[in-house]
Amino acid sequence: MQYKKYYYKYIIRLDPGEEIITSLKEFCMREKIKLGSITGVGAVNQATLGLFDPADKKYYEKELHGNFELAPIAGNISSMQGEPYLHLHANLGDKEQRSFSGHLNKAIVSATCEIIVDTIEGELERQADPKIGLNLLEF
Amino acid sequence: MQYKKYYYKYIIRLDPGEEIITSLKEFCMREKIKLGSITGVGAVNQATLGLFDPADKKYYEKELHGNFELAPIAGNISSMQGEPYLHLHANLGDKEQRSFSGHLNKAIVSATCEIIVDTIEGELERQADPKIGLNLLEF
Amino acid sequence: MQYKKYYYKYIIRLDPGEEIITSLKEFCMREKIKLGSITGVGAVNQATLGLFDPADKKYYEKELHGNFELAPIAGNISSMQGEPYLHLHANLGDKEQRSFSGHLNKAIVSATCEIIVDTIEGELERQADPKIGLNLLEF
Repeated sequence: MQYKKYYYKYIIRLDPGEEIITSLKEFCMREKIKLGSITGVGAVNQATLGLFDPADKKYYEKELHGNFELAPIAGNISSMQGEPYLHLHANLGDKEQRSFSGHLNKAIVSATCEIIVDTIEGELERQADPKIGLNLLEF
Repeated sequence: MQYKKYYYKYIIRLDPGEEIITSLKEFCMREKIKLGSITGVGAVNQATLGLFDPADKKYYEKELHGNFELAPIAGNISSMQGEPYLHLHANLGDKEQRSFSGHLNKAIVSATCEIIVDTIEGELERQADPKIGLNLLEF
Repeated sequence: MQYKKYYYKYIIRLDPGEEIITSLKEFCMREKIKLGSITGVGAVNQATLGLFDPADKKYYEKELHGNFELAPIAGNISSMQGEPYLHLHANLGDKEQRSFSGHLNKAIVSATCEIIVDTIEGELERQADPKIGLNLLEF
């Protein structure tokens, strides 16, 4: 991972083999980023996408293998129990340009991944909501 | 709906049962937001997606039912006849991670929906363009 | 193409027949934009989407014809050899709301296309990386 800060924004390049969620979380910890938005494009060769089922209160996940373009990856950075918390969704395009999308739990960069993090001054905590079954933004 | 303002940006949480377009329009009226961008992730269990056909000058819509992840919702806020006007498109991922996308006319939150509104100082009006059949941004 | 500048952001309207990548590149040259992010929604009737295969180091492209909603178009502006360089990915929804996505090389506007360019002060160059086979952001 390489990156550069431009006022409130960071431009990040992730390289082959890097896992996006882990890398971005480590980046947020290193740069002490507590709040912001994430958008990016890139190419991955493995991704775990999930769908949340509110009735069962759990994610139904699938691990996808093959070459995919991120079109796009999008989400936010907040905090939970003193750590940065990333909530990212992704849409992936395959060789036939078919799309697959969902809640992103893991993605391995195949060629390059270019992320813009737009930091926001301030904080916003998540708390587990047992009724909904998710960690919600608490205002 | 809960939200907090951070300088020029708002972070919004929509809750189960809330309709996204109506809720965001009401939010814009309450906060007197006339211009800005919208991006977000979340989960919905109903959505109306449309495709505009320039030949017929109308939208071909479909109402989708089931659990979907928004990956992502994106668009802009402008004004028309004194009211905030939202133009939003969405990409939805289902249980098999298949994607469905189009112009968003309605979406009901199933679990949570996290939206970032990045407001822009200034105004930009829409006007109906009879030749194209849409309400276009007029500069 | 029509547009207006709002502090660091531009709101752009592309019109029927305009090719998105060429139009945005010309816009960046005219406005001397060297760095920034691009997001947008709109409708196109032709698009060339590609998937990069890291093994072959080339893009596998397909030209799509028909009416599609951009949901969304996203990417960044950097520089290469003194010229603005656009890296854009797109997700397209068709008449049945099916999605197609990938690296965007060409797209013709059918009705309207609304783009927000969020410029960043500073510069970031790309360089060809022969090992990966892409023009990478060089920090």
